[in-house]
Amino acid sequence: MEHIQHKLHLWFGKQKKACIELLRRLVQEASTQANEATAQALIIEKCRQLQLQLDIWEPEIEKLKEHPYFVSARTAFHNSPNVVAVWKGTGGGRSLILNSHIDVVPEGDVTQWEADPYSGMVKDGKLYGRGASDMKGGTVALLLAMEALQALGIRLKGDVIFQSVIEEESGGVGTLAAILRGYRADGAIIPEPTDMKLFPKQQGSLWFRLTVRGKSAHGGTRYEGVSAIEKAWGVFACLQQLETERNKRINDPLYHHVPIPIPINIGTIRGGTWPSSVPDCVVLEGRMGVAPNETIEQAKREMEEALQSLSEHDKWFQSNPVELEWFGAQWLPSSIETSHPLLQTVTKAYREVKGADPVIEAAPWGTDGGLLTQVGAIPTVVFGPGTTAVAHYPNEYIEIDRVLEAAEMIACAMIDWCGVDGV
Amino acid sequence: MEHIQHKLHLWFGKQKKACIELLRRLVQEASTQANEATAQALIIEKCRQLQLQLDIWEPEIEKLKEHPYFVSARTAFHNSPNVVAVWKGTGGGRSLILNSHIDVVPEGDVTQWEADPYSGMVKDGKLYGRGASDMKGGTVALLLAMEALQALGIRLKGDVIFQSVIEEESGGVGTLAAILRGYRADGAIIPEPTDMKLFPKQQGSLWFRLTVRGKSAHGGTRYEGVSAIEKAWGVFACLQQLETERNKRINDPLYHHVPIPIPINIGTIRGGTWPSSVPDCVVLEGRMGVAPNETIEQAKREMEEALQSLSEHDKWFQSNPVELEWFGAQWLPSSIETSHPLLQTVTKAYREVKGADPVIEAAPWGTDGGLLTQVGAIPTVVFGPGTTAVAHYPNEYIEIDRVLEAAEMIACAMIDWCGVDGV
Repeated sequence: MEHIQHKLHLWFGKQKKACIELLRRLVQEASTQANEATAQALIIEKCRQLQLQLDIWEPEIEKLKEHPYFVSARTAFHNSPNVVAVWKGTGGGRSLILNSHIDVVPEGDVTQWEADPYSGMVKDGKLYGRGASDMKGGTVALLLAMEALQALGIRLKGDVIFQSVIEEESGGVGTLAAILRGYRADGAIIPEPTDMKLFPKQQGSLWFRLTVRGKSAHGGTRYEGVSAIEKAWGVFACLQQLETERNKRINDPLYHHVPIPIPINIGTIRGGTWPSSVPDCVVLEGRMGVAPNETIEQAKREMEEALQSLSEHDKWFQSNPVELEWFGAQWLPSSIETSHPLLQTVTKAYREVKGADPVIEAAPWGTDGGLLTQVGAIPTVVFGPGTTAVAHYPNEYIEIDRVLEAAEMIACAMIDWCGVDGV
Repeated sequence: MEHIQHKLHLWFGKQKKACIELLRRLVQEASTQANEATAQALIIEKCRQLQLQLDIWEPEIEKLKEHPYFVSARTAFHNSPNVVAVWKGTGGGRSLILNSHIDVVPEGDVTQWEADPYSGMVKDGKLYGRGASDMKGGTVALLLAMEALQALGIRLKGDVIFQSVIEEESGGVGTLAAILRGYRADGAIIPEPTDMKLFPKQQGSLWFRLTVRGKSAHGGTRYEGVSAIEKAWGVFACLQQLETERNKRINDPLYHHVPIPIPINIGTIRGGTWPSSVPDCVVLEGRMGVAPNETIEQAKREMEEALQSLSEHDKWFQSNPVELEWFGAQWLPSSIETSHPLLQTVTKAYREVKGADPVIEAAPWGTDGGLLTQVGAIPTVVFGPGTTAVAHYPNEYIEIDRVLEAAEMIACAMIDWCGVDGV
């Protein structure tokens, strides 16, 4: 095995140029929601070169939408193919899903980007562009890991199921469709941008919309009205208290250094229409973190109860209850024990390449790992290059060396998990 | 005089149909900002019938914009004529300005109206439509008052200067233009919708925009960011405290029954762009009341100081001060003593028609009376039919009987103030 690792290390040492080339081409395809096809075409071509068994299909919304964890604002997935590519093992080993999403969030305000958001420009060892960290760098790491093993003539015992899915950024329909199509494995790795940390547990999340009512009046006689902004302050305080209570219960050591393991974030606020009128409506939108060991139904119920309790302290809410709507995306939480063999495998692979122990934490955000573990019963570790500090922001980038490093670790993990034929 | 009042009363008793007809036609002309011309055409025609000396002109922005109290977002007033119509007195009496604005605020959400916003529909003694209360009902009251005196053959000693101005709802350029054109008088009556109360004092107001900064982050690690919404809460509380302090100083008995004489109203709030991101910017817009005996410069300075004091309790504001912008409309405050002869005249007229004492209060909002008193040095009483409870809202209406009642009172006041030739 020492020998294989050494060969792997040498092989990756020569891949920088190829890594940049593949990642640049992927980043240059602006695969925002509903525009995934051309980026998937690059994936398909690469998988074909690797002689994997390709399964390419457009998820059928009619079949999916009845599923309790189906979340999407789309009405169809035409021209938004899911790609699964299987590298069959020789038999007798553990199977492994390598899951990565091809969709990227929109580039946002272009003027805040120093270069074209889809330039794929390389500077000081970093490749820039929307999706570089989240998560085309991870995708390239997976593809390189498979290529490395093939290049060294290694044949794995267990099956490797590479998945390039759509819709992760909007709730996970791509991964859900792959699970419902029957893809299962003994474990899964998702190379989301963890900054090379290992996440055996991850927070789920729910989006909510709160409508707070007031009563309009002229600003000069504002005492004749009820300010929805003022009432929204009370709602905000209520959610802060709920957040405090929920986080007090989190005693998992993986959250030891996290100030707020499962935050409730108010992301947007909109209210009123005229400076000199008392606003009669405020709408708040936000994200509620769901603990790894909690169901989304439990989390929803807690917020519902908290909002109902508002009327105990403020009678206004008795006749004007806050309207709560769960909308948009949701990510299921996910959890495997820290003693789980898959985590040990990835930990070992990390040590082999890096010569140091990895940081093991609970993820502050959800991934498709929630669907894999909860719907597919597939133990999942999230681990990858790139960092969320730059994901979703202007001038997103990834360090090329981290992509190669993660690829090498994943290759090592594949060997350990799936087993090598003839060794 | 008893005799004249009796005749006036009989005359107004027959004007209901004519009153409705004129008011309906005025309401049916949707004289929102920049669309005043057709409504002014009706005014001009009526003034011509009354044989008044007409002065019709489009205010020249180049001349006006240097004035310290010029407020307008417009770049020209083409096809937005101001109308002044003078009824020359025989001499020796006090002159009186009858000021009314022809512009109306937009109809807003049409679906909230039970009928067309400009229908002029009459139902249960009320005439409906945008501008019915604010303030075409008042305009009709002024026109009927002059018509009544002429019908009875009364000739006043003092000049009566009727003004149908543009732009009151946006800061008063029409009245400012009339003052700068040279129109002055010994007193002025503005029949804004006071619900038949007499307002010798009125609150001024200023519009402000506050930009509150935060620091963006992913909602799952919201502790890495600074929520601009949370910071905006602090700004809101600061303004509430400022409002409390400012109102403590108001000891004018006219404000005795007013819970908040000079409110600070936050009318709109906008912040954040994504439910699962920490919002890095919140913009608040509002209206600050200015006391009748206060200058707008004093009021501005107090808010500036209050916002500066935020950094004493929260260091965030030291490096991220709240940005304050005075924008949009402003109305100067206005005040005459309760012992002023003009107020006595209107009070007497009210008693003569109604047989009861009027309610005398300080106005909770600004009118063009601020410009008349502060720029024109013209003592002003605001008094009229209609109510601000329906002004600026869907299904605005006015009670026809109140229009006629106010018209009769104004006719009586004209007789008392200007004096009657030959009596």
